[in-house]
Amino acid sequence: MTALYDVAALGNAIVDVIAPAADQFLVDEHLAKGSMMLIDEARAVELYGRMAPGIEASGGSAGNTVAGVASFGGRAAYVGKVGQDQLGDVFDHDITAIGVHFSGGRLVGGPGTGRSLINVTPDGQRTMCTYLGAANQLIPADVDAKVIEAASIVYLEGYLFDPEDARRAFAKAAGLAHGAGRRIALTLSDAFVVERHRESLLEFIDTQVDIVFANAAEIGSLFQTDDFDAAVQAIRGRAKIAAITRSEHGSVIVAGETLHEVQAARVEKVVDTTGAGDQYAAGFLFGLAQGRPLDVCGRLGSLAAAEVISHYGPRPQVSLRDLAAASGL
Amino acid sequence: MTALYDVAALGNAIVDVIAPAADQFLVDEHLAKGSMMLIDEARAVELYGRMAPGIEASGGSAGNTVAGVASFGGRAAYVGKVGQDQLGDVFDHDITAIGVHFSGGRLVGGPGTGRSLINVTPDGQRTMCTYLGAANQLIPADVDAKVIEAASIVYLEGYLFDPEDARRAFAKAAGLAHGAGRRIALTLSDAFVVERHRESLLEFIDTQVDIVFANAAEIGSLFQTDDFDAAVQAIRGRAKIAAITRSEHGSVIVAGETLHEVQAARVEKVVDTTGAGDQYAAGFLFGLAQGRPLDVCGRLGSLAAAEVISHYGPRPQVSLRDLAAASGL
Repeated sequence: MTALYDVAALGNAIVDVIAPAADQFLVDEHLAKGSMMLIDEARAVELYGRMAPGIEASGGSAGNTVAGVASFGGRAAYVGKVGQDQLGDVFDHDITAIGVHFSGGRLVGGPGTGRSLINVTPDGQRTMCTYLGAANQLIPADVDAKVIEAASIVYLEGYLFDPEDARRAFAKAAGLAHGAGRRIALTLSDAFVVERHRESLLEFIDTQVDIVFANAAEIGSLFQTDDFDAAVQAIRGRAKIAAITRSEHGSVIVAGETLHEVQAARVEKVVDTTGAGDQYAAGFLFGLAQGRPLDVCGRLGSLAAAEVISHYGPRPQVSLRDLAAASGL
Repeated sequence: MTALYDVAALGNAIVDVIAPAADQFLVDEHLAKGSMMLIDEARAVELYGRMAPGIEASGGSAGNTVAGVASFGGRAAYVGKVGQDQLGDVFDHDITAIGVHFSGGRLVGGPGTGRSLINVTPDGQRTMCTYLGAANQLIPADVDAKVIEAASIVYLEGYLFDPEDARRAFAKAAGLAHGAGRRIALTLSDAFVVERHRESLLEFIDTQVDIVFANAAEIGSLFQTDDFDAAVQAIRGRAKIAAITRSEHGSVIVAGETLHEVQAARVEKVVDTTGAGDQYAAGFLFGLAQGRPLDVCGRLGSLAAAEVISHYGPRPQVSLRDLAAASGL
């Protein structure tokens, strides 16, 4: 059956609150630069109270990725959960406005829409403190078989490995996808997620995952090694395709016996690295769903990542389709 | 008595929802480019549903102005009203985080925080549709005498001439300010505001206002003329100081017998003109409160306006104090 969607993604539906911060602010707040840490509502209120004025923009790792896929001209669906509140309206609006089918929906009577407090230091690095709120309440019943079965690739956000119910939603999505002859992609999301769930993640990858996305820290954490090449060799036999990003050093793509090294695309000035990995995945997944060669998929990923780090905010501000055309991709 | 604040402002407390739009979108929605139009909640929901994905950022004309004053290193207070909701939290956070004293407060049990749906066309022009919500409910009791009497200049946003209660709040603020030997500044805000309230505005200017801010369209509307020079002559006798902005042609400042022409500051690329007039007022008022000559006040205004139109969002993204120092002001 022809796929209605290039990509359907399951993720934490989050609105980002993005503000500039001095390095000293991170020190004072005991935040490790570049990390993502989960916080509760009380800490969110306290930290927000000390942050600089910011802007609010729809985010969430997989949400950013489907926004990127849509910007490339791809068709996408998103499964996630927001609260019955203004930030939920914002998330719903933004993802719908770019033509992404929003599935999953609203949590009634529970916590509000999840938000990520993102402090961006002058070097462009983002340090994220995320209050998950409603996002964390994704359950198997939120996964619509019609959406999953209609997607060429089903993309799962590793952050959702924390709550038990969401992991069951992943299992349901994986079963439905493979039953319909579709592929499953997984991003490891964060080195600490990998640390918390190493064994389950490896088992899930071995049994369910066709395409793995990770950065160097995450793949190192998965195989408990600081040796990048060793980690790349280790993932080789376990997933059909693995795309490992290395910030300004580009990415490495392994698939069976083949290995591609892809350079990072040039960036005039790095403003805010929020969403770099998400947009890399967007370009890669879009290319893959369109049947492009793996090295081209990697270059589409680099292109999208370079666009998003050149401005504040985690989603593309120009048409990635036009950008790809201008780059001869 | 030494003033605790350089500027205290009364305005519509608004959160901006800023999204890119094609020129055709304005045609389809019957929106006049560059205008500000008031809309009700139903129209806001409908229009938002058709807009592109956006970012949310605290705005409101006078709110932007005090944010600019604070960015210059000035001390400011803001009197306005938001709802008991997430956008109210955002407005409160953002203005407090820059060191502005937020007075006025929260409307309980009424409409939500006001928002302005801003469509930015590729030429950088902004077309605003504003749902005032709670902002519109400012009443005299919200005006704290201690705040008004402690400000060197009290700045009033012409948009608040529409609701009767807010106009009474203006009268109270003007009375308190003059009683304490302070100065009153008024921005005409919008040509349609002037159209609706021409006689009352002229009477208010004649009896209460020391400093008038307007753009060419607004001052033309006030005196019902298309002749810019005639309008400038007409305001001369009625306010001690008038600062009239003319977009890329800079501004004209008249005070008694003196007239200064001030050039616009150079801008690499105009991205979004939202907040240009507000930031001009910020630079001008900061300069005036610091006792700088009128032409320097105008140049500080031009500098702040140039910064804000070079990016999305209505408030400065860099320190205007540093920018002024770098420009030798």
